[in-house]
Amino acid sequence: MKKVRVGIVGLGRLGFSHAEHLKFHIANADLVAACSVVEKEREAVRQWEVPYIFENFEDMIVSKEAALDAVVIATPSGLHCGQVAKAMDAGLHVFCEKPLGVDVAQCKIAEAAVERHPELVFMLGFMRRFDPSYAHAKELIDRGDIGKPIMIKATSMDPDSMIDSFLPFAPTSGGIFRDLAIHDIDLARWFLNGDDVVSIYAAGGCYLYPEMAEYGDVDNACAIMRFKQGGIAMFTSSRTAPHGSQIETEIIGTKGIIRVAAIPEKNLLTIYQPVGAVRECYVDFRERWAAAYLNELTAFVACVAENRKPDVTVYDGTKCTEISYAAMDALHTNQIVTLQ
Amino acid sequence: MKKVRVGIVGLGRLGFSHAEHLKFHIANADLVAACSVVEKEREAVRQWEVPYIFENFEDMIVSKEAALDAVVIATPSGLHCGQVAKAMDAGLHVFCEKPLGVDVAQCKIAEAAVERHPELVFMLGFMRRFDPSYAHAKELIDRGDIGKPIMIKATSMDPDSMIDSFLPFAPTSGGIFRDLAIHDIDLARWFLNGDDVVSIYAAGGCYLYPEMAEYGDVDNACAIMRFKQGGIAMFTSSRTAPHGSQIETEIIGTKGIIRVAAIPEKNLLTIYQPVGAVRECYVDFRERWAAAYLNELTAFVACVAENRKPDVTVYDGTKCTEISYAAMDALHTNQIVTLQ
Amino acid sequence: MKKVRVGIVGLGRLGFSHAEHLKFHIANADLVAACSVVEKEREAVRQWEVPYIFENFEDMIVSKEAALDAVVIATPSGLHCGQVAKAMDAGLHVFCEKPLGVDVAQCKIAEAAVERHPELVFMLGFMRRFDPSYAHAKELIDRGDIGKPIMIKATSMDPDSMIDSFLPFAPTSGGIFRDLAIHDIDLARWFLNGDDVVSIYAAGGCYLYPEMAEYGDVDNACAIMRFKQGGIAMFTSSRTAPHGSQIETEIIGTKGIIRVAAIPEKNLLTIYQPVGAVRECYVDFRERWAAAYLNELTAFVACVAENRKPDVTVYDGTKCTEISYAAMDALHTNQIVTLQ
Amino acid sequence: MKKVRVGIVGLGRLGFSHAEHLKFHIANADLVAACSVVEKEREAVRQWEVPYIFENFEDMIVSKEAALDAVVIATPSGLHCGQVAKAMDAGLHVFCEKPLGVDVAQCKIAEAAVERHPELVFMLGFMRRFDPSYAHAKELIDRGDIGKPIMIKATSMDPDSMIDSFLPFAPTSGGIFRDLAIHDIDLARWFLNGDDVVSIYAAGGCYLYPEMAEYGDVDNACAIMRFKQGGIAMFTSSRTAPHGSQIETEIIGTKGIIRVAAIPEKNLLTIYQPVGAVRECYVDFRERWAAAYLNELTAFVACVAENRKPDVTVYDGTKCTEISYAAMDALHTNQIVTLQ
Repeated sequence: MKKVRVGIVGLGRLGFSHAEHLKFHIANADLVAACSVVEKEREAVRQWEVPYIFENFEDMIVSKEAALDAVVIATPSGLHCGQVAKAMDAGLHVFCEKPLGVDVAQCKIAEAAVERHPELVFMLGFMRRFDPSYAHAKELIDRGDIGKPIMIKATSMDPDSMIDSFLPFAPTSGGIFRDLAIHDIDLARWFLNGDDVVSIYAAGGCYLYPEMAEYGDVDNACAIMRFKQGGIAMFTSSRTAPHGSQIETEIIGTKGIIRVAAIPEKNLLTIYQPVGAVRECYVDFRERWAAAYLNELTAFVACVAENRKPDVTVYDGTKCTEISYAAMDALHTNQIVTLQ
Repeated sequence: MKKVRVGIVGLGRLGFSHAEHLKFHIANADLVAACSVVEKEREAVRQWEVPYIFENFEDMIVSKEAALDAVVIATPSGLHCGQVAKAMDAGLHVFCEKPLGVDVAQCKIAEAAVERHPELVFMLGFMRRFDPSYAHAKELIDRGDIGKPIMIKATSMDPDSMIDSFLPFAPTSGGIFRDLAIHDIDLARWFLNGDDVVSIYAAGGCYLYPEMAEYGDVDNACAIMRFKQGGIAMFTSSRTAPHGSQIETEIIGTKGIIRVAAIPEKNLLTIYQPVGAVRECYVDFRERWAAAYLNELTAFVACVAENRKPDVTVYDGTKCTEISYAAMDALHTNQIVTLQ
Repeated sequence: MKKVRVGIVGLGRLGFSHAEHLKFHIANADLVAACSVVEKEREAVRQWEVPYIFENFEDMIVSKEAALDAVVIATPSGLHCGQVAKAMDAGLHVFCEKPLGVDVAQCKIAEAAVERHPELVFMLGFMRRFDPSYAHAKELIDRGDIGKPIMIKATSMDPDSMIDSFLPFAPTSGGIFRDLAIHDIDLARWFLNGDDVVSIYAAGGCYLYPEMAEYGDVDNACAIMRFKQGGIAMFTSSRTAPHGSQIETEIIGTKGIIRVAAIPEKNLLTIYQPVGAVRECYVDFRERWAAAYLNELTAFVACVAENRKPDVTVYDGTKCTEISYAAMDALHTNQIVTLQ
Repeated sequence: MKKVRVGIVGLGRLGFSHAEHLKFHIANADLVAACSVVEKEREAVRQWEVPYIFENFEDMIVSKEAALDAVVIATPSGLHCGQVAKAMDAGLHVFCEKPLGVDVAQCKIAEAAVERHPELVFMLGFMRRFDPSYAHAKELIDRGDIGKPIMIKATSMDPDSMIDSFLPFAPTSGGIFRDLAIHDIDLARWFLNGDDVVSIYAAGGCYLYPEMAEYGDVDNACAIMRFKQGGIAMFTSSRTAPHGSQIETEIIGTKGIIRVAAIPEKNLLTIYQPVGAVRECYVDFRERWAAAYLNELTAFVACVAENRKPDVTVYDGTKCTEISYAAMDALHTNQIVTLQ
């Protein structure tokens, strides 16, 4: 069994976690190279004796010594699509973090690269699909347990306690739907069998952080999207969840309903206290998605090793970016936005 | 303690249940009269030795023998407002089932009557406010436990298994928002301190019962409403819940979130079966609201006895009717409807 | 429909609640008499215009004016059996609060009275059987949903916050099994089809209140009971529940398991707070059993009116008293106690 | 970072899973040797290119080529203690599956080996302590969240659907308490700070599988154990759970109660079906303890690498074996068994 030789670019919070998974937890991956513009980040992986360390992405992908099979891209969103194209043109399989690009024009660059290289694996990091609960929901739906899915209700709430780490990024985040709801949008399309959105309405407000209005964002929002084949999705996005992170999804079918994480349970404990019977909640997205992050990279490496294509395509990335922008438009104009 | 002498008009399913409560379970009410155009229904209450039985509403309210203090109106919706006006003009306190009227014009007739008779008690049957769970939620909100409420998510789903009893009434029901969501609309306004809706968007479809399209209705719908002071409410209404009746409400505040009946638990049982750990659900609205129906009439009778005004006003009825019509408009036109 | 003329003796906390139910909430009962040795208690019911008020139990049961059909006994436990005998000998139907008597000898007096008067209704206040959740559990078991019940796990925990109201009665309470577990014992026998206990082991301790050791009691205890036909029951009894009252019962069958009130949910609310997702708990036994207390008296009155015998018999009372004493013996001696 | 060179003996279901973890998921372990008497099992790991494969345990532990640091023992229980002694005498760190030995005499052999080699790491496979939920419970208890723990209620139920795979081993399993409750016994001691059991009572029966009586076992049992410092533990063990595997533990403290897995939730899904709101359950112990099995081996390897001693000691193994035998005695004799 030949191991897949992987390089990673971007070693921030998420990139570093991907690097750890590749180095320590994925048997048929060999993390042979890592790249970051930040010396401290390079030093961190140097400790693990990763053989080739780069400051420059272009150097890494063409390095004869590193001789990469694949690259994992975890750089700032604005760089994704260009790096996707370069890596694929250098003959590498690519795993790219979400969002695909910051606008549709960028996404098209990535699409073109993927189309130029049908021989290569490209996978986008919509990791929720690899969470055991969501994967199980999809399985139940696909085998018909809830009949035909007709309505999706998706909620993504970041805890108010994390607002301080978000606010510095708020001006460049692209807004609540692009930054926060994009996973929900992907899930809605996934559960509705890849159907397309035809119109969007959205509403929201700056309830706790009026300063967010300055850069055209809100701290709480909701949206209704109509799909081509008649399905409907409702979204709730919030930066100010009082109790912790909450990611909840409901799929209403003609014969059954599935709800994922109505209570964002941390583990199997119930604590009986004077306040009542308490289910503790997971504290943030890393705790919630620990398994999903590992599973998605494992799946990517397996796709490369076995020369299979993943289910998440580059087009999923473009669509979700397009939809999230339309939702921001609807929010700003208080109008229904139509997609073709 | 003088008992309140009550007459009831309308002895259908709900009216009969109100009559039972008045006769058997409310100590300071004396059910002295009942009125129905259906002989079988009159016969049913005659068994209980209710002294005065009428075929004609006007006869009942002026009857010297019956000498009513108050009347409970549970007739078809189209008759409500006229009967409210007549009863109040005859000097009687009035409890009227929801909806107040089938259109805003009718509601205005009732409003005028209430305004003509400030000395009389008028109460509308928004019984959910009297459900112990909702009442407790309101209490927690009012004492500030969840900070300022900013978003309401309300779901009312009737079980698909009841569709046969609904379809005959579908043509005259007024549509899914007026018939089904009206309680949710009342709750949203209640939890948002009576704030007014300024704009509405709605979407829906006939997923299981295409025949409903003929009379301009849908079997599943959702809506977003923006309120004057910035609050937002999202509604989901369905005629086709696969698992039973589900009435769920979430109130998202700046400091906490309350959810009512995320699982429509029938009672305190958990049944461990091969299928999993099962919480049985209540079968229909009568099981769900048994306590609420009794509590609301008890509250009405107490208001009459103690000469107090109830919290639910005639204007709540008009507003909810108005909003539910606007929501149907939004649904039909796929446009945002603005209210002033 | 002739109303059942009822008198009540004992107007303490529970007796007063029974009186309220008879007066205001049970249609075919007529509360015509009440008896208490405490003037303040008599005064309370006098307000309701109960026509005949007595200081002396014997006077009430023979009163020609009161002309009682039935009597409800809610006096201190030591008086129950003597009053049962006197009332039945006076030709009255009897509802008696639990426990039947404070020892088996007393119970035999009540048994003899019931046997002397097969024409009269006698019912013991094991109200849990009338709780909607327990009644539903029994229904499911009886129709075979969980196969043959083989193990019962029963927990009754009083909140530590109520300890101050308990401690004064501790010396005369009869001990934790007789005072607290007696309902659990009744339920275990009920779910095991009235089977008899053959041996008992128990253990416990004074963990928070060492002073309880002085009168031979403990603040927390558990017991295992073996039944004649092979079934087993495990009991946990506590005076020191940190979070509120908890009454939980599990019935393990060969084909399914039913658990009642694993979380002592107050209502249908879930509150999302920084501490986690909270289900509030009922505060005390009155909140938990509000419906059960009303239902049991309603059932008693219906039995009298329709000349039917209730399922709860005088022998259930004797058995449970006997078993609870044996459990206290096992606890004190650290030995297995055998019953014949 | 030097990797720990590990050999494994025993490649049955559990041993193979340990081998997989060492090979693929634990970064600083190097699985260099494997040993089994079964050719098919050796072949399986040979596929992974494990360099040294043995038929004979003694050969493996002294092999100069393998040059092991540590050995993982997953052979039949009767072999454990002898292999522990041999491996430690050969200078190897040892991880040994539970139970330590099939009787106390065997356990003493392992204890002596551990005492002879204070320089070596010995760890026993009580993997539940490494489950995230149990580990979190222990953390909360240790920081005082529930005050002083006074009562433990532990339930281990194997699904009836697995009975066919159990029955062949039933004659040699050592009985329900030794085979099934031993983890619960370990947890009870752990949560009660390692306190010792002073007396035991047990009861049980062959409710579904009378044939188990032949080898002195039962299919359902319960026990009460008293601890030296006054704590009490109650155990329920079953081979016939109708709904799946259930491992539930309750820790009752003076200031709070923690319950682990009251519902054996498979994941975060709630499925709303006509039968009710369903939480699916994990299907067997491998699904339940997937994380725990990985975590315990990871912890063992870290202990070896960092020269630390694990919390689980050889004496924990002896104690649990001793207690489980005493519980079987109590069950057979219907007497209280005292431990010194």
